[in-house]
Amino acid sequence: MDAQVPAPAKTVAPTLFRRSRIRVKELLARGLELEGQSVTVKGWAKTLREAGAGAFAFLEVSDGSCFASVQVVITRESTEGFEAALESGGVGASFAVVGTVVKSPAKGQVIEVKADKVELYGGIPDPATYPMSKKRHTLEHLRQHAHLRPRSNIHGAAMRVRNAMAFATHEFFNSRGFLYIHTPIITESDCEGAGEMFSVTTFLSKHPDGKLPVTKEDNKIDYKADFFDRPSYLSVSGQLNVETHCCALSDVYTFGPTFRAENSNTSRHLAEFWMVEPEIAFADLKDDIDLAEDYLKFCVQYAIDNCADDLDFFNKNVEKGLLDRLANTIAAPFERISYTDAVNLLCEPEHLKKGKFSVKPTWGTDLGSEHERYLTETVFKKPVVIFNYPKEFKSFYMRLNDDGKTVAAADVLVPNVGEIIGGSAREERLDVLEQRIIESGANPEDYKWYCDLRKYGTVPHAGFGLGFERLVRFVTGIENIRDVIPFPRWPGNAAF
Amino acid sequence: MDAQVPAPAKTVAPTLFRRSRIRVKELLARGLELEGQSVTVKGWAKTLREAGAGAFAFLEVSDGSCFASVQVVITRESTEGFEAALESGGVGASFAVVGTVVKSPAKGQVIEVKADKVELYGGIPDPATYPMSKKRHTLEHLRQHAHLRPRSNIHGAAMRVRNAMAFATHEFFNSRGFLYIHTPIITESDCEGAGEMFSVTTFLSKHPDGKLPVTKEDNKIDYKADFFDRPSYLSVSGQLNVETHCCALSDVYTFGPTFRAENSNTSRHLAEFWMVEPEIAFADLKDDIDLAEDYLKFCVQYAIDNCADDLDFFNKNVEKGLLDRLANTIAAPFERISYTDAVNLLCEPEHLKKGKFSVKPTWGTDLGSEHERYLTETVFKKPVVIFNYPKEFKSFYMRLNDDGKTVAAADVLVPNVGEIIGGSAREERLDVLEQRIIESGANPEDYKWYCDLRKYGTVPHAGFGLGFERLVRFVTGIENIRDVIPFPRWPGNAAF
Repeated sequence: MDAQVPAPAKTVAPTLFRRSRIRVKELLARGLELEGQSVTVKGWAKTLREAGAGAFAFLEVSDGSCFASVQVVITRESTEGFEAALESGGVGASFAVVGTVVKSPAKGQVIEVKADKVELYGGIPDPATYPMSKKRHTLEHLRQHAHLRPRSNIHGAAMRVRNAMAFATHEFFNSRGFLYIHTPIITESDCEGAGEMFSVTTFLSKHPDGKLPVTKEDNKIDYKADFFDRPSYLSVSGQLNVETHCCALSDVYTFGPTFRAENSNTSRHLAEFWMVEPEIAFADLKDDIDLAEDYLKFCVQYAIDNCADDLDFFNKNVEKGLLDRLANTIAAPFERISYTDAVNLLCEPEHLKKGKFSVKPTWGTDLGSEHERYLTETVFKKPVVIFNYPKEFKSFYMRLNDDGKTVAAADVLVPNVGEIIGGSAREERLDVLEQRIIESGANPEDYKWYCDLRKYGTVPHAGFGLGFERLVRFVTGIENIRDVIPFPRWPGNAAF
Repeated sequence: MDAQVPAPAKTVAPTLFRRSRIRVKELLARGLELEGQSVTVKGWAKTLREAGAGAFAFLEVSDGSCFASVQVVITRESTEGFEAALESGGVGASFAVVGTVVKSPAKGQVIEVKADKVELYGGIPDPATYPMSKKRHTLEHLRQHAHLRPRSNIHGAAMRVRNAMAFATHEFFNSRGFLYIHTPIITESDCEGAGEMFSVTTFLSKHPDGKLPVTKEDNKIDYKADFFDRPSYLSVSGQLNVETHCCALSDVYTFGPTFRAENSNTSRHLAEFWMVEPEIAFADLKDDIDLAEDYLKFCVQYAIDNCADDLDFFNKNVEKGLLDRLANTIAAPFERISYTDAVNLLCEPEHLKKGKFSVKPTWGTDLGSEHERYLTETVFKKPVVIFNYPKEFKSFYMRLNDDGKTVAAADVLVPNVGEIIGGSAREERLDVLEQRIIESGANPEDYKWYCDLRKYGTVPHAGFGLGFERLVRFVTGIENIRDVIPFPRWPGNAAF
């Protein structure tokens, strides 16, 4: 009954349908194998320059399938649509090209396409004001035009690497028998203090005058009238929820958006970011660290194997030495050092002097970013795992060590980014967990369901969280976290 | 430096570490190949029954890696830990078992494990009150204990199938060169009317008295004081955002949570659900429908190939005939019929009589669920694609057909679920799009960035959205949408 689907109504290029097109990635990969064959390429002009006194022109066509574009040669004499192409506005205009693959006489490319026909889908009305014009734009400019920046070299490359890292994540865990669990985004669990969480509500559109219903008793917001009947938030982590499935299905992970309402207007924070959080049953901290190291190395290897062009671009234009740094990441075991040893090491006179820390590290307070970066970039020059942190500044769910002072937690630090992973063994002993909840100042009643996982058939388990944007920063060398996510959100910005 | 990672602090089963365990899935798959070998299995008791006048007992151990559990035989005489196991509380208690794989004399299983040692991780303190006790529980009971229901057969199976469908989705699109784009969750774009969207705000925790700041001018909520400086919502769809990347990178998809603040307390609606939304450039409606059909068939085939045990369970216990229905889905091309033809068909006296519709279908109004189910379940008995809907009840971004009355939209209907996919060619003509935005009552200014995609280098493109929970319902036969997602959210419920 296919015939009942009508031929598409009049389009700007009615005669060329999708089925016939070859992606630029495939075209370039097959190269001379296709010599002499007719192909159809569709995409956007990266450049358009006339030559030979107007007799012909070079049209670079990109379709985003890979970093490179393909050179198309159009001639006044033998390319149908030549005039329209020249009047398209050039960079950013969209085309369908039918032509023959030929050996390229130009440097840096093996083949080019000699066009018989070029059809314009859509031009650029006023090229001088086109936000993605040929000239070099600042990253700030690109952010302001987040809807068009996928057309820029850097954002296209970042998105291809981000895609590769997401697929690598699923591939890694799936091939190891982990189940992907979609933990909830909206939650009643105010697990790290409501001050840093976004509320989810239908009150605002219902009460545009800003007067929300309050209870008679205490004149506080009456959540019984809100959608979920009580205060509800955007999740800051899927961990507690994914533990429920770990404690039945053994090896699981969640990968989804998480949220922080921190008022941090920096290049390191987003209000909305993605986290990868595996959780493994019958596991201790060493298993957890081993998993983190395997996973990170798998991702880096995957990028090297699958994103060579894009990494090459980043290596040349964003961070000289990126490729060496990535190769170095997979070349050797990560350094593993206890928090106590790390503090002692940083306090050696040599390091205190060389590190020039604004704050001297002391046992019992968390390491600062300056200490972490110094350890991974200067001392060990590779990824470093720090484990067994003082319990005082770590979460209640982290397993208390026998010393009574430290918890079985570990952070993975990497050059250029700092902390990329934080994880721990989870406290599986019900009595210890309840004590730690109370010590942390939380209400055990709020964690009754979480404690049930220990009350009934408890098992030792462990897990970690990886900031996905940090992984993309690590693999691309891009500094600003706003440039590795399609539509970044920060205080004052939820545009598009 | 591994040695610096301390041996795990005292655990309930200190001598058995994770590395040594074999998953139940692998153990059963390898079966007699392992006969005579010593294995370590870790998991939770599905049953524990004494036999032989207390001389031995059968312990069924599940670790969630597959539907089946493995039978462990423990004996008073030769199994270390026998007494503790008997006193564990049985169902739900967690164990590490070391034993030998032997041929099983019992029916329905090829091997069992003769245990040398069984160590208890955690028991069930009061088995009679354990919410996941052996007896058959209602789905409602399981929902109320969403943190423990992964331990139930049905939810474990549903989560394994859900995981498989998520991986199949990534596998399908990745292998076809699509890029996975994480579209934003928090958005200013009020794209389908704020009434059905959740607001995201930091006002509620800052103003617990319910008195929000208002502007002097009009006494309305002063969003300048809120986190994002203006009204912000949870996204209802990633489509408009993902189009930005389609119009540069050609073939893309998004897969993430979406939200509706509809006050629907039904078994068909969730306030939070996941959507798969591919978007393809240089494509028309036929390409879009072909993609939808390929994708759906791929998912069903993937489930058949990878979830045989779980599907078997659903086929026996949830929907008799499920396996036939799934086989039927991939056996033949989907039916494709225009909206106009579908309405005419439904209005034939025979169907009007047989369908017993509460509302008679008429051209110009949307088909009801009763009409859709009748078409796919009774008339065609397989998936049906309905295309070219009247523009009146479809979105402004759907491409206007040459008849000026219909748009190039298509819905895919499947037996048991009804609509599972909705898609369309997108209006790529700037002037037509602007006109349609105005006609829809929206403010073109709000869609300026969306229109920019047409202003600059526009291309024909198309896409669709698949409700991921509907896919899981379709593949498992589970009726209530609350039972195919880990933590369902509906009016009055964001528990856990």
